[in-house]
Amino acid sequence: MLPVAIIGASGYTGTEAIEILMRHPNAEITYLTALPEECGNVAEVFPRFKGRCALDIEPLDMNKLTKKAKVVLCCLPHKVSMGFVPKLLAASLKVIDFSADYRIKDIAVYEKYYQPHTDAENLKHAVYGLCELFRDNIKNAELIANPGCFPTSLILGIAPLLKNKLIKGTIIINSVTGASGAGKNPSKSFHFPNMNENFFPYGIGKHRHQPEMEQIASEVAGSDFEVLFQPHVGPFDYGIMSTIYCEPKEKITAEKIAELYKSFYKDEHFVQVLNTAPILKDIAKTNYCHIYPALCKDKIVIFSAIDNLIKGASGQAIQNMNIMYGFDETAGLL
Amino acid sequence: MLPVAIIGASGYTGTEAIEILMRHPNAEITYLTALPEECGNVAEVFPRFKGRCALDIEPLDMNKLTKKAKVVLCCLPHKVSMGFVPKLLAASLKVIDFSADYRIKDIAVYEKYYQPHTDAENLKHAVYGLCELFRDNIKNAELIANPGCFPTSLILGIAPLLKNKLIKGTIIINSVTGASGAGKNPSKSFHFPNMNENFFPYGIGKHRHQPEMEQIASEVAGSDFEVLFQPHVGPFDYGIMSTIYCEPKEKITAEKIAELYKSFYKDEHFVQVLNTAPILKDIAKTNYCHIYPALCKDKIVIFSAIDNLIKGASGQAIQNMNIMYGFDETAGLL
Amino acid sequence: MLPVAIIGASGYTGTEAIEILMRHPNAEITYLTALPEECGNVAEVFPRFKGRCALDIEPLDMNKLTKKAKVVLCCLPHKVSMGFVPKLLAASLKVIDFSADYRIKDIAVYEKYYQPHTDAENLKHAVYGLCELFRDNIKNAELIANPGCFPTSLILGIAPLLKNKLIKGTIIINSVTGASGAGKNPSKSFHFPNMNENFFPYGIGKHRHQPEMEQIASEVAGSDFEVLFQPHVGPFDYGIMSTIYCEPKEKITAEKIAELYKSFYKDEHFVQVLNTAPILKDIAKTNYCHIYPALCKDKIVIFSAIDNLIKGASGQAIQNMNIMYGFDETAGLL
Amino acid sequence: MLPVAIIGASGYTGTEAIEILMRHPNAEITYLTALPEECGNVAEVFPRFKGRCALDIEPLDMNKLTKKAKVVLCCLPHKVSMGFVPKLLAASLKVIDFSADYRIKDIAVYEKYYQPHTDAENLKHAVYGLCELFRDNIKNAELIANPGCFPTSLILGIAPLLKNKLIKGTIIINSVTGASGAGKNPSKSFHFPNMNENFFPYGIGKHRHQPEMEQIASEVAGSDFEVLFQPHVGPFDYGIMSTIYCEPKEKITAEKIAELYKSFYKDEHFVQVLNTAPILKDIAKTNYCHIYPALCKDKIVIFSAIDNLIKGASGQAIQNMNIMYGFDETAGLL
Repeated sequence: MLPVAIIGASGYTGTEAIEILMRHPNAEITYLTALPEECGNVAEVFPRFKGRCALDIEPLDMNKLTKKAKVVLCCLPHKVSMGFVPKLLAASLKVIDFSADYRIKDIAVYEKYYQPHTDAENLKHAVYGLCELFRDNIKNAELIANPGCFPTSLILGIAPLLKNKLIKGTIIINSVTGASGAGKNPSKSFHFPNMNENFFPYGIGKHRHQPEMEQIASEVAGSDFEVLFQPHVGPFDYGIMSTIYCEPKEKITAEKIAELYKSFYKDEHFVQVLNTAPILKDIAKTNYCHIYPALCKDKIVIFSAIDNLIKGASGQAIQNMNIMYGFDETAGLL
Repeated sequence: MLPVAIIGASGYTGTEAIEILMRHPNAEITYLTALPEECGNVAEVFPRFKGRCALDIEPLDMNKLTKKAKVVLCCLPHKVSMGFVPKLLAASLKVIDFSADYRIKDIAVYEKYYQPHTDAENLKHAVYGLCELFRDNIKNAELIANPGCFPTSLILGIAPLLKNKLIKGTIIINSVTGASGAGKNPSKSFHFPNMNENFFPYGIGKHRHQPEMEQIASEVAGSDFEVLFQPHVGPFDYGIMSTIYCEPKEKITAEKIAELYKSFYKDEHFVQVLNTAPILKDIAKTNYCHIYPALCKDKIVIFSAIDNLIKGASGQAIQNMNIMYGFDETAGLL
Repeated sequence: MLPVAIIGASGYTGTEAIEILMRHPNAEITYLTALPEECGNVAEVFPRFKGRCALDIEPLDMNKLTKKAKVVLCCLPHKVSMGFVPKLLAASLKVIDFSADYRIKDIAVYEKYYQPHTDAENLKHAVYGLCELFRDNIKNAELIANPGCFPTSLILGIAPLLKNKLIKGTIIINSVTGASGAGKNPSKSFHFPNMNENFFPYGIGKHRHQPEMEQIASEVAGSDFEVLFQPHVGPFDYGIMSTIYCEPKEKITAEKIAELYKSFYKDEHFVQVLNTAPILKDIAKTNYCHIYPALCKDKIVIFSAIDNLIKGASGQAIQNMNIMYGFDETAGLL
Repeated sequence: MLPVAIIGASGYTGTEAIEILMRHPNAEITYLTALPEECGNVAEVFPRFKGRCALDIEPLDMNKLTKKAKVVLCCLPHKVSMGFVPKLLAASLKVIDFSADYRIKDIAVYEKYYQPHTDAENLKHAVYGLCELFRDNIKNAELIANPGCFPTSLILGIAPLLKNKLIKGTIIINSVTGASGAGKNPSKSFHFPNMNENFFPYGIGKHRHQPEMEQIASEVAGSDFEVLFQPHVGPFDYGIMSTIYCEPKEKITAEKIAELYKSFYKDEHFVQVLNTAPILKDIAKTNYCHIYPALCKDKIVIFSAIDNLIKGASGQAIQNMNIMYGFDETAGLL
């Protein structure tokens, strides 16, 4: 059994990773860490695990970590993560990092949206862990930059068009996420009586996932692409529905598009091309991406649905781990 | 007190109209009708009205109607409405029609989306009841085509740009409605355990509100405009959030746009231009439209929020009635 | 127009009171106060009021208050309220207090659940503002202790039995409240992704509303009654459903009970006795209480539903004000 | 691999059973049946299974069934089930029946709540499948009557008191279920805009689970017990929270009760006795029952939470199957 540590185990992605690893046939959690005030027996901190998981969540101790684990799921927030990752790599641990810190190759762009970057060296070697597109690089990676949830929904939704150079112009992506996307810390906007029965846009004109989307879209296409990304949040727990609008270079039929998508993803387990609109609830709590490409008024409109915490975070992280260690790619995943 | 009848009082728009009229200082409900199986004392049919409204809902009797009312809110479904409206007008009643039957001036377009049109004569004289834009025509109308909920959110959101001829190209409108938009009849998709925690697009490439939007947008602009309209439904009761993407003809600043919108709506009570993103819950159960125009990546992105049953239906109907009868335009409305 | 001030206008009960008073034909808000960090134009603090209310929320200034208002809705929290009420009364203002500070007549009991009581003098003269039962005292009151939301649902639900001395033994009240009952301050339990799709009991064996219930139940009955009160919270915004279990002194039929309830409340506008189970949504956003008494296995089971913020707080406060000033008791209320 | 058939696979309990069996290390689904109009490839009927399950749902064919399966999960509705079970048993299949048809031993009681019973013979040998209490009988059963969801929450919550003869008088059980308890068929009450933000009691004084509760409670206690059961439904998908009120025969301390419960369930994997109130969300989508017994005003109040579709139906069915076939009792279960 592969010994796995989770750093930052007390957030939503951390607990989701615990759920997945408890079902995993080839891996086991050996070490869980969090900030001191969130430590304790995992079943006391999260009664959901009572009777199911006997581990403790402890403050991070590098000595313990290197003895107990071979691979680390690093569920720390943006900006914090790059303070830890160099040490983990130096200790010969493999790292799957959930933050944005190793996703953006252009340091100037990263620094515009986040803060000064302090680990340019490892950034160079980090592999962007969008499994379906970069599987070969993932196999031998020491450091995976686990993709953002919105970028995952966009890139999977648009890759067949980009790869085949079928579109031009700015890609508009209008996304809706469930409220778990905001993380575990209480705030006024996400206080239940405020968020319930509500719906609103945020990050207007400046969401941090926009540069990540542009970088990967451009890489997949082999030429520069601009993305206009507008996220919204809705009154439900899980899932992202992205509605993507783009312009075909040349006239194309709906049948041709459908065929292209089905062929592109025909060997993929976790990406399903539908003949009709995806329903968010169908992918909730799974690692699947449901995609439906349509033609509306000479624009191509693609609907792409994932669970933000699974395929958009912890599920894709385990899928990356499965690829890195040669396990069945679906191991532990629903 | 102006005597008002509601035909089709048992649907969501009908009961919402009852709520509003119960508070109205210048009008009173004198007659409520519905299909025979939905008739009875209004407080028995809808316990919400117990102690608040003593009226009966009765099967429609034209004689009674003409004796009891001067104006009719016709809350019948599309295609059914135009079977009744000619009789109502012939009896010298004023009519505010909630269906799509008198909204689309081009019969060929109407018939493509609905069915053969049987009342071309009255269609000619029907006034499109988007109060803020067509107030002068509304004043003297005998027949109001009360606007659709999605078109209301779009047209209010984009009118300042259209009137000033500032945009070009296809307008993309990505909308989300609460589940009450589906009406009162149970169905598999809207069965609670299916709709709850869910989110999905529908009417892909063919929603019936698209031609209504194009007609009114073109009328407001004075030139043809194409609209790509994509609705979605979310797990909440009330409200529509429309996110509108369009292209400026010439470079424009965000400040200039904000100024333009504020000036355009400066005398309007029910349209509020915000300095930040609208929050759906802020307009729920009110007749207000909250708008925020932004500039993102050289596109203009407008957020427009209304309550689908109030400003998108029954509230705007009463606002129309207020204009027609010279009442305070806000009478009865929250 | 009666000039009304709201102290503590920035909480859920405060804003609900604003909504009601904006519709009131005989009263107008003249002064709104809150903590300094929550002050500002009411439409800036709460965009819901944009275009609807032009008032400012200001830090409390006693001089201004006494000049601007004749009656004060004091929406301050328990324990804070009794620091202000004596000054308000001393300035000849009438006060409707939303806190628990003037509800419990036995200071020892109050102090067990809250803190040392510092205003025994005014406590003596405070009138418990459960309108349907204490209307005569309310008429001439200077200080109203506006009832708690749970006690309102219990006492209205059980008064016909208590007054007629038909029951014995401990009254069990199992209640469910919407999440707005927790107030506006964010917390872990009420963070949307935690509270959504959730349901849990709280205040086990020690909820502060228990002594209030026992005091009023005993007063209504004319003899001591014990109440076992167990609240729960569910994933919705508004409303309380109380399911009350009690034991008849002697055998009684369901018909007899129904008759008794209908007769008891026959002249009450806001209490409706149903022939079937109440539906929470029917009373949401209204000042009504829907009650259904049933007989199950020789126990009497009463279902009592109110909106926690309206009949359970701000609505009942305005109803009290209406009684105090001789207005139509329903003025401003839906 | 044990070959398992699911009859009535298209309802909520059927699809939940598919989810569980897809994860099961010792069993596999070999045959799925439903009414003809609900047949087809499982991934077409339920897009949730796309890429995850390649089976077809077919109309029931007894020949096929006996060839393909050794054990049948019979997810048919009450009254329908007993038309099929005799044939299944006659074909030497083991049956786990989800309906109430084999739960109530007293035919007169069954017939009062349901209909004439047509399979008295098999009823005699049916084993009530509440795993923690009747494990020994389950091991050798040919026909399991899988318990109702509410009775499971009650009996697990009260068994330690009943077994130890510590309580007397009528047991009051006030329960709340999520809306999936109503099944998959759309209805007015469960239409999203009606059920959302709602909460209501139902089955007042006559719910069908009451006699089942009384039979099993009496059996566990060894003497007759009366149960007053009042269910409610709330606006969430999954879970049951039962709040149980009962009277101790003799004075008892809270510590003593806690100790008793912990000792009673110390070897049980799926029943966890907490030190604080259960939170519904903690057991959602799991096979666990979380219990917290408290002492309030000389009554014992027990909180018992399960997922209505898992421990209350499909999960417990698989747990029964695991016991019958000597598998690890937790196999396939989360």
